[in-house]
Order: sequence, then structure tokens, then C-alpha cells
Amino acid sequence: MSFFSFREETDKSTPHVVLHRRLVIIMETQAKADAEEETNMAAWLLGIKNLKIQPYHLPPLGPHHVKVQVKALGICGSDVHHFKTMRCANFIVKKPMVIGHECAGIIEEVGTEVKSLVVGDRVALEPGISCGRCRHCKDGRYNLCPEMKFFGSPPTNGSLANKVVHPAHLCYKLPENVSLEEGAMCEPLSVGVHACRRANINPETNILIIGSGPIGLVTLLAARAFGAPRIVITDVDEHRLSIAKMLGASEVVQVSTDVQLVDEEVARIQNAMGCDIDVSFDCVGYDKTMTTALNATRAGGKVCLIGLALSKMTVPLTPAAARETDVIGIFRYRNTYPLCLDFLQTGKIDVKPLITHRFGFSQEEIEQAFETSAGGGNAIKVMFNL
Amino acid sequence: MSFFSFREETDKSTPHVVLHRRLVIIMETQAKADAEEETNMAAWLLGIKNLKIQPYHLPPLGPHHVKVQVKALGICGSDVHHFKTMRCANFIVKKPMVIGHECAGIIEEVGTEVKSLVVGDRVALEPGISCGRCRHCKDGRYNLCPEMKFFGSPPTNGSLANKVVHPAHLCYKLPENVSLEEGAMCEPLSVGVHACRRANINPETNILIIGSGPIGLVTLLAARAFGAPRIVITDVDEHRLSIAKMLGASEVVQVSTDVQLVDEEVARIQNAMGCDIDVSFDCVGYDKTMTTALNATRAGGKVCLIGLALSKMTVPLTPAAARETDVIGIFRYRNTYPLCLDFLQTGKIDVKPLITHRFGFSQEEIEQAFETSAGGGNAIKVMFNL
Amino acid sequence: MSFFSFREETDKSTPHVVLHRRLVIIMETQAKADAEEETNMAAWLLGIKNLKIQPYHLPPLGPHHVKVQVKALGICGSDVHHFKTMRCANFIVKKPMVIGHECAGIIEEVGTEVKSLVVGDRVALEPGISCGRCRHCKDGRYNLCPEMKFFGSPPTNGSLANKVVHPAHLCYKLPENVSLEEGAMCEPLSVGVHACRRANINPETNILIIGSGPIGLVTLLAARAFGAPRIVITDVDEHRLSIAKMLGASEVVQVSTDVQLVDEEVARIQNAMGCDIDVSFDCVGYDKTMTTALNATRAGGKVCLIGLALSKMTVPLTPAAARETDVIGIFRYRNTYPLCLDFLQTGKIDVKPLITHRFGFSQEEIEQAFETSAGGGNAIKVMFNL
Amino acid sequence: MSFFSFREETDKSTPHVVLHRRLVIIMETQAKADAEEETNMAAWLLGIKNLKIQPYHLPPLGPHHVKVQVKALGICGSDVHHFKTMRCANFIVKKPMVIGHECAGIIEEVGTEVKSLVVGDRVALEPGISCGRCRHCKDGRYNLCPEMKFFGSPPTNGSLANKVVHPAHLCYKLPENVSLEEGAMCEPLSVGVHACRRANINPETNILIIGSGPIGLVTLLAARAFGAPRIVITDVDEHRLSIAKMLGASEVVQVSTDVQLVDEEVARIQNAMGCDIDVSFDCVGYDKTMTTALNATRAGGKVCLIGLALSKMTVPLTPAAARETDVIGIFRYRNTYPLCLDFLQTGKIDVKPLITHRFGFSQEEIEQAFETSAGGGNAIKVMFNL
Repeated sequence: MSFFSFREETDKSTPHVVLHRRLVIIMETQAKADAEEETNMAAWLLGIKNLKIQPYHLPPLGPHHVKVQVKALGICGSDVHHFKTMRCANFIVKKPMVIGHECAGIIEEVGTEVKSLVVGDRVALEPGISCGRCRHCKDGRYNLCPEMKFFGSPPTNGSLANKVVHPAHLCYKLPENVSLEEGAMCEPLSVGVHACRRANINPETNILIIGSGPIGLVTLLAARAFGAPRIVITDVDEHRLSIAKMLGASEVVQVSTDVQLVDEEVARIQNAMGCDIDVSFDCVGYDKTMTTALNATRAGGKVCLIGLALSKMTVPLTPAAARETDVIGIFRYRNTYPLCLDFLQTGKIDVKPLITHRFGFSQEEIEQAFETSAGGGNAIKVMFNL
Repeated sequence: MSFFSFREETDKSTPHVVLHRRLVIIMETQAKADAEEETNMAAWLLGIKNLKIQPYHLPPLGPHHVKVQVKALGICGSDVHHFKTMRCANFIVKKPMVIGHECAGIIEEVGTEVKSLVVGDRVALEPGISCGRCRHCKDGRYNLCPEMKFFGSPPTNGSLANKVVHPAHLCYKLPENVSLEEGAMCEPLSVGVHACRRANINPETNILIIGSGPIGLVTLLAARAFGAPRIVITDVDEHRLSIAKMLGASEVVQVSTDVQLVDEEVARIQNAMGCDIDVSFDCVGYDKTMTTALNATRAGGKVCLIGLALSKMTVPLTPAAARETDVIGIFRYRNTYPLCLDFLQTGKIDVKPLITHRFGFSQEEIEQAFETSAGGGNAIKVMFNL
Repeated sequence: MSFFSFREETDKSTPHVVLHRRLVIIMETQAKADAEEETNMAAWLLGIKNLKIQPYHLPPLGPHHVKVQVKALGICGSDVHHFKTMRCANFIVKKPMVIGHECAGIIEEVGTEVKSLVVGDRVALEPGISCGRCRHCKDGRYNLCPEMKFFGSPPTNGSLANKVVHPAHLCYKLPENVSLEEGAMCEPLSVGVHACRRANINPETNILIIGSGPIGLVTLLAARAFGAPRIVITDVDEHRLSIAKMLGASEVVQVSTDVQLVDEEVARIQNAMGCDIDVSFDCVGYDKTMTTALNATRAGGKVCLIGLALSKMTVPLTPAAARETDVIGIFRYRNTYPLCLDFLQTGKIDVKPLITHRFGFSQEEIEQAFETSAGGGNAIKVMFNL
Repeated sequence: MSFFSFREETDKSTPHVVLHRRLVIIMETQAKADAEEETNMAAWLLGIKNLKIQPYHLPPLGPHHVKVQVKALGICGSDVHHFKTMRCANFIVKKPMVIGHECAGIIEEVGTEVKSLVVGDRVALEPGISCGRCRHCKDGRYNLCPEMKFFGSPPTNGSLANKVVHPAHLCYKLPENVSLEEGAMCEPLSVGVHACRRANINPETNILIIGSGPIGLVTLLAARAFGAPRIVITDVDEHRLSIAKMLGASEVVQVSTDVQLVDEEVARIQNAMGCDIDVSFDCVGYDKTMTTALNATRAGGKVCLIGLALSKMTVPLTPAAARETDVIGIFRYRNTYPLCLDFLQTGKIDVKPLITHRFGFSQEEIEQAFETSAGGGNAIKVMFNL
């Protein structure tokens, strides 16, 4: 029996035969994909601060995949790191790579087995594809999967492109009242949501957030949505604090970078809180910020380390441990998109104030956009509209 | 560009292109699979008590799959239900189906992407393939996946066959000192392990097990391995109790089917325990057994309902709820095989005494084996050696 | 050395000597207490529907105790049970007992060691005093303490009295914007809060509440405050449903007492929800309500049994267990008052609409109040102002 | 009504009246206590390395207290710190204090309300008395109680004395086959048990223990009893490693104090484990030990910091956080004694090999004992027999 004369064997075949049939479908889909390959363009990172829009061949559309026209994409701090240094933490860009991962778009085509989505649906894309076979995937902690393929995390190409192919189950339909830009914001928001879940934020948890950058602010938004009664947030920058206040922080405390002032600042923070600090989020990751977090948090509380500024830290870990104040790590997120979309739909979270700059998808504008995002100033989230 | 002239695009291709390449490999693999298809035989359930050994076409070997020569397979209570009634709970056998799911075997061939196993490896097969895309799969509770394809659970074919094709990540290599029969026993043992995990059995949990059938006995073995300090087990049958005692129960209590005696029996059970009962496992599922479990368990304890004899039950649920004694449900298991194999390897669990009967894989013997398993008597586990 | 010539032994005394000193203080306090004993009056339950205001001798004020002028007290369903039948569940009133337990008041006197409260503070009183020595107390589940002394739960006297003496740590200072009546409402609200905590209600939990009586309504209020995105609530009574809707239920579903209609009603409920039901609260406790809860809830979800109408129930427990839908019991609450007060202060919960009737503390009015509460009609919470 | 003419008011009295009656009993008890006060002797720490046996006045025996003849007492590292420096962490000895807290003894007298113990019972004494009123006590985390009175932790007197008065619920009856010395060992063992509980050690957790001193060794014993399948333990000292091996470590790895060798040592440790390290216990608390723990532990694992050598640490906290490897703190223990005694009774743990030296309770021997314990050498646990 040859491959192409494959016959249907309804009564005695195993369910695995289904795979065989899908194979034929994959091939047909591939032929179609080949035909349109050339029309797709993407932003390739070719070297330090060298970003070029060039053709990008789409992979074949698998039975459980969809093809999505990317319509909104936000620039993340990690993208900026890649842009400026060709690396971020221990991820290194060794060959040309399409950049970007915070995105939303419109379904253009669906695989043969996709039932949850139809052409025309507006979706937010969760960027990471886990293996489904390792201990972490089986255990529901798929964000720790060692074989994760994550948009724009080398060597996996990203999604700053006209179109991408992605597993349907990682594409979440946007509610009617949620825009594509807000859909793209699910990605950074997910970090805050995951941190709040890991730290078990609820209406009984009074919170300190250290750092009012994008991560600090999404953590603030998420913590409020999880019902945290009081949230004190800090930063060195007055403008950022004013945004944090506007986004719902109970109190803001301006701090310095002077390590000598830790004790005094902890006292001011505790005073601003007016009650025990149950959970602190360090969204920066310096010796001083982590020292502040460890010293300010109550016995039996938790410190969440999200910011990754330093690799080694000199911190008073032992006194915290002796109060059973635990340190919780955060890596990306898992299964957060449905909740993010619910928060956006119901208005429990409004991410629109975070979007401070917008650019189109042209050679000139992509350079400008990354410079804006990298340049400090008052940019919080820089967004592409494709 | 045609499908077969597919060119390597190293520098600009996306990781999804890998899928394309695998496609070619799948096809080649298929050709090979087609050639040997006819040699495989399996036990097909054609009607009530009508079991025939007939050819079984293997599906193509996917890149992440392995082909396994089945060498040991145990008969489960659900298999017997299918055999006797063509149904089990709300699973109904509507067309001929290969039966069986508790199995172990030897790797005959591995898919192109399989790195964890090689030809000749002895493996235990976890029988259920979950979708990997639903909320339960993403959440690490894949046993609740609504699209689960489980060996011998209609309409999915089982594994009482010379060979099966299965995902490599569900095939667990046997340690040297664990036999193929013991490997097959990982399946029923997994139910006990999962129940102990859900009930959080540990060295502080004193346990009552109601029912000394196969499920009661594997729960006993698992509970001991999890460190339960005292385990009292009950049954109506003296022989079964003697086995339970031999397997390590602290105390055995013979009970009746007389509902009037519940209070007296609860008193005898509590007396045999000599301390609070923290967790009870009802491995039977009748009004009386569940009443015993609910009444015997301490405030703040847990009752695990594993046995499914009845659908509706008349039970004192409210008094238990008013003591915060929760009722925990159990459905199959998830991610239990590595732990089962570790228990077998280290000798913390010995399943060999549970295997009471053995048969070969011939038309005559399969009928005999199922009759033995169905026939009551002193059979605990009936095993095929293929 | 005699008892009364007790000398200070600063350098070599053990900390336990402190107890000795407190003893002297206790005696002095007692002398003072004796003097005012006669002025206190309380509502004694003398027999079925026989409630009399009579003198009530206050116990001595211990060093960690406070004397409270009771100012607001709500009637609970269990009080009504005692009033009508001299019993509630397995608590039986065997001798005259002061009734009542949902109360708030004003601090009149504080024990020598009390630092958290001063005379004049307005406080809500948590009614149960646990032993602090048993396994449940040590484990933080003090509501299960077998030696619990709970206001108005026989044989412990209640708090429908001019004054009561109570441990300071069970008296929670009311925020300025929380009234004494709202303070008294912390007690029933605590049941809802405890149920939501045990069921882990959060912004990802869609909820069904069965029964719109007082317990159903406080569960609704609590569930909203914990962030439950969608809450469907049922009742047979249209008026109660209208109140539930007014209090923030997403949808209300009118149901019947006809057991035959369970399937149809489950379908209507699921339809009203529009997504999976993660947690159901049965605030009634009949076969039918529990059947509805068990059948309506998703695989891996939870059913909380709060209502205790029936002792034995005939319910489809097994199919629920086979979906790992657990049954969680609820008994009173633990450590809920700070959270209740925070919910009231911030306006996340408004309990005022639940207070439908008010009475004074006179012989005539207490009878009238209990008749109103017992009489059905549209009474939700009947409140005394003392 | 005067205090001494207190009349019984059975019908109308509140349960608090019981307190009044106890008062009388307390006074009588006190009179008796006064009489025997002088006979009791204790080891007072008067200054650095200045330990004197002097009279110790026992406090009155409360209704829930017992008087215990101390029979066995072990010297803890914190006792040695107090002995050598008059301080330990931030606890400072400011006035003469009885030293010691790891003890067991025989009940000499019981308070009027004590039902669980009788004169002559052999008991292990849990040394800390928590307030029962703070958030931590109510929440079941009483080890974090800020008002904890802990034997021999300044300013609370310890238990190296002929007799002590202690709450009955903190005195745990020894099983027949558990000696008084083993009873005293429950205290250090509790630290290991609490660490294993907090880290959720079970048959699926492979463990690294850093440091084979007394704390490392009790953690090893506890981890084995909790079913940890593989335990690798390290130390710089070969003799200690040989004891760890004898006590059941799967593998031992000798390490250095050279910080440059961290990576190489981590590799050797991981190699000795042969599989993922799920949980690491740092029982030392230096930069290097914590770096080893953080780098060796798998993604999603836990590092338990028990050793408190340094206050500030320079450690790679961020890379660990980015793998969601959490840092768990440990402070003493809570509610561990029943489990410790069960481990000792059943033989799951044998603490006898840890007792390396024994002394009597004389002026000469106590000095000798503390010098032995402080002096390094091969002493693990130094025990007094009183």
C-alpha cells in the first residue's frame, strides 16, 4: 500500500490513523502556504541597532494552527535589550531573528482541526510554545519548559511581521470591547498577573511595589484587580509615581538610589502603608531594592523578585528567612490570557494609559520606535500599528 | 516551490519550518509502517463476552512516537465491565475495539525526534493521550482533558496487541530490577498514588481504606509508600483482609453489608485505629461504605471517593460538611509513572503479590483470562504475558 | 512567703511570675465586677418560644478581657431554631441560656493587659472562644476546636444583654465609617467570607449560589468582594431573587422544589452562566439543591455545602467524584473579622440592605423580633438596637 | 459579694465564671508552690562563659500547667552562642537567665484542668509559649508570634533546672519505647521536620543538604522519614560526612570553603544526585553555601535557608528567581512534637547516634559540657542527665 493510495479503514483502524490523514492535509496546506510566502515581511534584527524589514517565509499551517495578520505589537524591555546589545540575560542573538512578541491580530486562515476560531476573529497571541512532554508541561508549569519556543527569544523568530503562524490554542479571541492594542497588552500584563497569582494576592494582601516602570505598573494594575486592599509603590522618578498614583496606587513613595538611606526609606514606606506589608514585589532587581523589599515585609510574608537588573545581589537574606519571609521567583507567566482578557473586558483593568507612543510598520518608523523605547524619557509602552 | 524540492533556509527560516522537514520523515516512516502492518494481532472486543484475536493495523510512527512490543498486560475491572456488558460507567463500546490498557513492553522502533528512548528499552506505557490544548492540560490536570484518548476506553483502541504505537513521553523506561509485569502494574498502582497525592497522604495522615479489592490494595501500598503511620482496612471477605494484612495494613476490620451495623462498625474501626482518622478512602462506592467513611473521619479530615459502584448515594453528607470533612473525587491519575517506578525500584512497594494469575496471548487463553478475572474467586490481578 | 506579701523578684524570677502578679489584679478587678453585677440584664431562653429579660451576672474581667456594652445584635437562623425548638442541629438547650451572638458594642472597661483597645472604642465581637491548646487551634483551624465556647450555642450563654465580658483579641475596632449595626453584620458575613476562602474564590472563579436567603446573600456579597467574575444565584422566591439581583448577582434563575426538573434547571443555570461553573455554593442543603450543585459544576471544580437542611442526602456523588469535583464543608469561620471590616470600610461590601427590621431591647420587642425573624415573610436580617 | 464568699450560680452564670473558680485554685496552688520554691536549682548564665547553679523560684502552677522534673537536656548551638557571647542573632542576654531549652522530664504535678497528663508521665517539652491572640497564632503559624516566650531565649528563662512549670499542652507524653534523651532530641529534630514540611518533602523530592552539623543531620533524618528518595549531603569535614552516610544519606560530597570552586562543586553535587535536585537545604548560611544551593536546584524547585551564619549575603538570587526557584525561610517550628515522637516510636528516625557526650548537672559538669559543645571536635549533641 503506498502512501498516496492510503485507504480509509474505519472499523479496525486506531485513532492514530487520524494522524495519517492529517498528513495529507498538511501537504495541501503547505502547497498553499508556499504560494503566498513571498508577500510576508518582518522586522529582522541583523546586528546591534540594525533592524531591517525583509521577507519572512511562513511555515506551513498545521491542522491545529492559525495564520494571523499581526495588527498591534508593543515593544518590551527585552526587545530593547536585544536591539541594543544582541542579548538579554543569557539569551543571545546569534543569527538574524525577527524581533517582537507582544502582539494581537486578525485570523486569516485556520487549520483543519481548529474549532475555536474562525477567519476574521480578533485575537491576542500568547507568544510561547511549550513542548507538552516535559515534567513542567505535565505539571502545569509550562512556562518553565526547557524546550519553550518563544516569539523573539533567540533563536525563535518573533512576531513583528505582517503575518505569523501560531497554535490556535495560544490565540485568544478578543471580546468586542477590547481593542487590538489592548490585546497586545495582555503580554506584559500577564507578567503582573502571574506574579500576583504566585504570591497569592487577594483582598487580604497589602502590597509594596518597588519600581514604577512598565513591569511595576502592570503589577499594580493586576494587584488591584486581584483585590489587594492597599498598594504602596515606589520609584526614583516623580513622573512615574504620578502615573502610578493615577493608576490607583494607595500611596506613592519617592526613593533614592542611595544605599545608605534604606532604613529611612523602609520606615517611610511602612508608614505610608499604615499596616503590615504582606507581599513586596521588587520590579527592579538591585541590591538596594531587594534590601528594601526584604526588610519592609512582615514575618510570614513574601517577596517577589521580578526585576532582573543584577545577577548577583548583596542582600539581608538571612534575617528575612528567620522571619519566614519567602522569596518567590517569577519567569514569564502561564495560562494568563483568559484572565487578562476578562479584566480588560470588565474594566477591572485599563491598560490604555500605559500606551504612550504609536508607530507604523515602515523601515523608518521601526527604528524610531525602538529608539523611543530605548531612550528613557517618558515612554512607557511603545506600540506598533501594522 | 514544490513540496518535495523543499530547500533549506537556514538563516531566515522560522522554527516552524522544522515541522516541514518532519513531514518528509513522517512519510518515509509511514512507508515502512505500511510494510509491516499485517503482522500485528490484537484482541478485539466484538460483542458481549465476544473477544477475538484479529489483525490490527498500526498507525504511522510520528516523530515523537515509539513502536512497542507489548509483553505484559493486566486486566482491569473496567476491561471486565466492557467484556461483560460492552460498557463501563458512561463509556459505551459501539464498534469493535481492541481491549486492554495496563501494559508494558519493549521498544521496537523510535520516531525521529525521540531522544529519551532507544530500541530495546523496556517501558511501562501510560495509556492516556491528552490534547495539550485545553484548560485542564494547561493547568497540569490533564487527566480531566475532555479529548483524552485512553487505551481501551471506547472509542479508543486498547493495547492487548502484539504491538502498539504510542507517544514516547508516555513510555517510561523500566529500571533494571523492575520486571515487565511490574511495569504493567504501574497503571493500577497509579490510581492509588493519585488518590494519595490528592488527599495529601504523608507521615502525619492516619488512614482508613474501605474495600480490599485491587483498588483498595493499591491504595494501601501507595499510602504506606507515602509514609502513612497507621492504615486500617476493611472488607467483607476474610481472604482479602488476610492479603491486606500481609501487604502491610496496621489493622484489618471485617465488616458486613448490613446497613444497620454502620454505627457499630464505625466504632470498631475507630477503635482499631486508636487515634483520629485523618483520611478515608472509599474504594467501593455504596451508601454504606460512604456512610462509614463520612462518619469515621475526623473534623477537618478528608474522604476520598474512588469506588464507583453506585451513581446516586444516600449519605450523611451534611454532618460531615459541618465538620469540614471534605469529599475528594478521583479520576484516573496524572503524571504518576515516574513515582510508581521509583517505588518499585527501591522496594518501597512490591506489587508482585497482587498478580495471582497468568495467561498467554492465544484465542483460548484470552477468553479464559477474562473469565477468571470476571469470575470472582480469589483472583486479584490477572496478567497476560505476550 | 505568703500569697499577699508577694515580693518582686526582678533578677531571678521566671516570666511565669508575671502570672502571679496578674492574679492580684484579677482579684481587684473581680471586686469591682461584683459591685456592678446586678445592673446587667439579658434575654434568657427559658423554654420553647419563652424568652425573658432577666439579670445576668457578668464574669470577672480577666487581664486580657474587655467589658462591652452591647449596642447592636442581629438574629441568626440558629437563634430562631433555638427559640422555636430549644435545639439546632445537635446543639440542645438544656438549661436557661442567654440567646444571641451577632453583635457589636462599645468598650466600657479593659483588662490590665489589654493594649489594643481603650474605653469608648466601638467593636464587633467574634462570638467563639477556642481553647488554644488542641490540634485544630494549633493548626489555625480554630473553628473546629471541640472545646469552643460560642455565644448562644448551648451551653454557652449568648450576648443579647446589656453588657458582656469577652477576650479583647476577639473584639475588633470598627473603622469610623462602619456603624455598630454593620459591625454586628460581620458575624453572618463571616460565613460567606469563610466559604469563599475555603473554596478559593478569586477573579478566575465563576460561581453558582443556590438559595437567596441570608446565607446565600452574604455569600454573594463575599464572592463579589473576592472578585468572582460571574455569579448566578437561584431561589424559588422571586422577591429574594430581586434582592440578589440588586446586590450584584450577574444573573438570577428562579427554580422550583420539583425534583423532576433538576436536569432542566441545571441547563437553565449553565445557560445563564454562559461559561463553566467553577464553584457552587449550596446554601440550602436539600437533595435537590445538592444534586443541582453537583451536576452543574465543572470537572475539577468545587461544591461548597453550607446549608444544613437535611442530615441524610440522596445525591449523585459518584459522577461528581469521577470528574474530581470535590465537596467542601463549611463550619462557621475563622479569623474573618479584619477582612469583613475592611470590606465594609472600603465599600466593597454593603450589608445595610440586608437589615430589614429593627427592634429595641424590651420584653415586648424581643418577642416581636423573634416572631418576625421566624415568621418568614420578607425579613432578611432582624436587628436589635440596645 | 466579696471575693472569698464567691457563690456558685449554676443556673444563670456564664461560662466565664469558671475563670473565677480557677482563681481560687490558682491561689491555693501558689501557696503550695511557695513552700517548695527554694528546693529548685537551675543553671544561670551570669555573664560570658559564666554559668552558675543557683536557686530558681518556680512560678505558680496554673490550672492548665504541669510541673516537670527535668531529666534530659541537650545543648543547642544557640545556647552555646549565649554562653560565649551573651547573644544569638538579635537576642541579647541583658540580665541573669536560666539557660537551655531542649528537654524532657517527668510530670511531678498537674494543674486542676489538666486531663491529658498524670503524675509520673514522661514528657518532651516544646519550649515556646505563644500568645494565642495575634494574627500568626490565629493563623496556625504560632512560631512567628511576636510575644513568644521561649525557654532560654532572652529574656525568658530556660529549662536547665531541676524543675520547670510549663503549659500541659506543650508537654508531649513519650511512648514507652522512647527514652527521655530521645524526648529531648525532639527539639532539634523539630527544626528538620518543620523545614521538610515547609519545603513539602515527600517521596517525589530529591534533596541536597548543605552542611552536616547538627541541623544538617536532623534535616537528613527528617527528610528520610518524609520519604525523600535521594539525599545528597555536603560538608567540609570528612568525619561529619561519614556520620551523614551512616545516618542514611544516599551520597556525600566533600566540599571546600573556596568560593572559586562553586561551579565545580555544583557539578559534582549534581553528578552525585544523578537527577534533578528538587529542594536544597542550606544548613550553614554563607555566601558560598547559598550560591551552591541556588545554582544546584532545578527550575521550579525550592531552596530552604536554615543556617544563619551571615546576615548579609552576596548570592545569585536573580538567576534563581528567573527559574522560579523560590527561597523558603525557616524559623524554629510549629506543632512538630507529635510527629517527632511518632517517628521515634516507629523507628523511622533514630536520634541516638547524634548524642555523642553526656554530663551530669553539677557546677563542674555544666561548665565542662558547654566547653565540649563549644569546642568543635567531634561533638554533635551534648546531653545533660539530671
